[in-house]
Amino acid sequence: MAKPVLLTGIKPTGDLHIGNYFGALKPAIDLFMTGKYNAYLFLADYHTLNFIQDAEEMRRLSRECILAYLAAGLDPARAVVFKQSEVTAHTELCWIFDTITTMPYLERAHAYKDAEAKGREVSVGTFNYPMLMAADILLYDANVVPVGADQKQHVEYARDTAEKFNRVFKEEVFTLPEPIIQEEVAVVPGTDGRKMSKSYGNTIPLFASRDEIAKAVMSITTDSKGDKPEHVFAIHRLVRPEGELMALYEEKRGKYKELKEALIEDLDAYFAPIRAKYDELKGDDTLIADVLAKGGERARAVANAKMERVRAAIGVA
Amino acid sequence: MAKPVLLTGIKPTGDLHIGNYFGALKPAIDLFMTGKYNAYLFLADYHTLNFIQDAEEMRRLSRECILAYLAAGLDPARAVVFKQSEVTAHTELCWIFDTITTMPYLERAHAYKDAEAKGREVSVGTFNYPMLMAADILLYDANVVPVGADQKQHVEYARDTAEKFNRVFKEEVFTLPEPIIQEEVAVVPGTDGRKMSKSYGNTIPLFASRDEIAKAVMSITTDSKGDKPEHVFAIHRLVRPEGELMALYEEKRGKYKELKEALIEDLDAYFAPIRAKYDELKGDDTLIADVLAKGGERARAVANAKMERVRAAIGVA
Repeated sequence: MAKPVLLTGIKPTGDLHIGNYFGALKPAIDLFMTGKYNAYLFLADYHTLNFIQDAEEMRRLSRECILAYLAAGLDPARAVVFKQSEVTAHTELCWIFDTITTMPYLERAHAYKDAEAKGREVSVGTFNYPMLMAADILLYDANVVPVGADQKQHVEYARDTAEKFNRVFKEEVFTLPEPIIQEEVAVVPGTDGRKMSKSYGNTIPLFASRDEIAKAVMSITTDSKGDKPEHVFAIHRLVRPEGELMALYEEKRGKYKELKEALIEDLDAYFAPIRAKYDELKGDDTLIADVLAKGGERARAVANAKMERVRAAIGVA
Repeated sequence: MAKPVLLTGIKPTGDLHIGNYFGALKPAIDLFMTGKYNAYLFLADYHTLNFIQDAEEMRRLSRECILAYLAAGLDPARAVVFKQSEVTAHTELCWIFDTITTMPYLERAHAYKDAEAKGREVSVGTFNYPMLMAADILLYDANVVPVGADQKQHVEYARDTAEKFNRVFKEEVFTLPEPIIQEEVAVVPGTDGRKMSKSYGNTIPLFASRDEIAKAVMSITTDSKGDKPEHVFAIHRLVRPEGELMALYEEKRGKYKELKEALIEDLDAYFAPIRAKYDELKGDDTLIADVLAKGGERARAVANAKMERVRAAIGVA
């Protein structure tokens, strides 16, 4: 029996931190490594264009994002790695979905309502985002799409749109995808105990030197009244088995500085190989081009075959 | 010096009448025949998908529309004839424009406001229509776009979008198009004196037999008090020089039946060659495929070259 198709989209956000690593990179790579899926990983650069409208910045972030995944252990033999912008079927199918989707339906999308509520002048691309995402998913007959709990609606839009297309054009062209929510994905706390996020300024950079790690760890806020530095522990358990940690934190009870030093040590040891790999790959000019060229070719073959069916079903071919 | 680029989009509406002929087909073909332009004519099937969501109907109407233009004298050597759906750059560029366009700006489009006002559930494709049309125009560096007076706003949206793209991405990628309004294009009156329109049921079919023409002409409303049948005359002047007609209508003053018979004669004579050509071409299964294949190839070459520049300017290549 064919393996289920799994599809993951990634956005080139820049300045990756260990929250991104434990919340996005590692869970995605872990899923590919199970070998249970026919996996696709695409860089959602046409989504990103809503926010990054500078060619140099787009190129730098796209490159860094793919490099980060490769350094973190993404094996291109385990997933079709490609850029959304290199498969024209995504935007073509998005338009086709636009024609069968009503304005009121799309106006109900959370992401759009949130952006509207913030009083910004929302772009049409932000509004139309769920239809491009539906195309991203449905072109590959994705069975499962890993999402955060707050992104379930995106997969629902893709399901609804698949059902509507199949119904309107009287042909079972699209497979209905299911979201998978990886329960074990940790919410990574930042140096102040809140969720680690660039916008809070509470991050530990992913590709930091030991000195940068030390600086970030030393800034972790601790409660002088407690006997265990909660925020230090919360980060520490990401990089060392909890069983081992209990003994350490028992032994060093109240010795915050020593516990922070232990965390620096463990973070550095954990991320050193990834950092080394990143530095090694960074010098390889053709690597990313090769990975994306091969992945793009495979993705186009699948997406274009699906578009043949779509075009026949709507009567433009 | 290179000829200015002229671009015309046509929609497969079906049941063509002589109002379409004098209002759309003939003026477009006349422009191509001047030889003054580097002309493109495309079938806007991805726009049409907002209204026609039935594969057989889409195929039939698309085929009939191209056949009608060829029968009416369109020379594929004088214009690049292609289907919008066969050049993926149109929808790709539409998406890119979506990302630099705000919701309030697009909400101001007349066509969208009119559709909203009618209380229908407007499709996202209808809302997003001006951005696909901007892509249609700007991909080919169109200098002039023939439009009806009520469609000037579409060209303004394309101009604005070209300017915005060039400004945001700091590169002169797009040429600003100008509308041309063909003053000599007649508003064709129907059999009841109102504008000829399928929705008024006052049409004279373009590919009608003589009997069908006779039936339509006999139904033309006449004012029994006047000495000249205004509505008969208004149609008659489309197919016979006005100078000749004045004498005829003088001679046959008050003889409505005879004047209608003269109109039947003249309409039949005028459209017989077009009808014959249509019947001849209809039997040629490969003709349309050949025309569209050649045109599609030429259009893709131009559009894809433009997309190379776009992709470099936004940083996805």
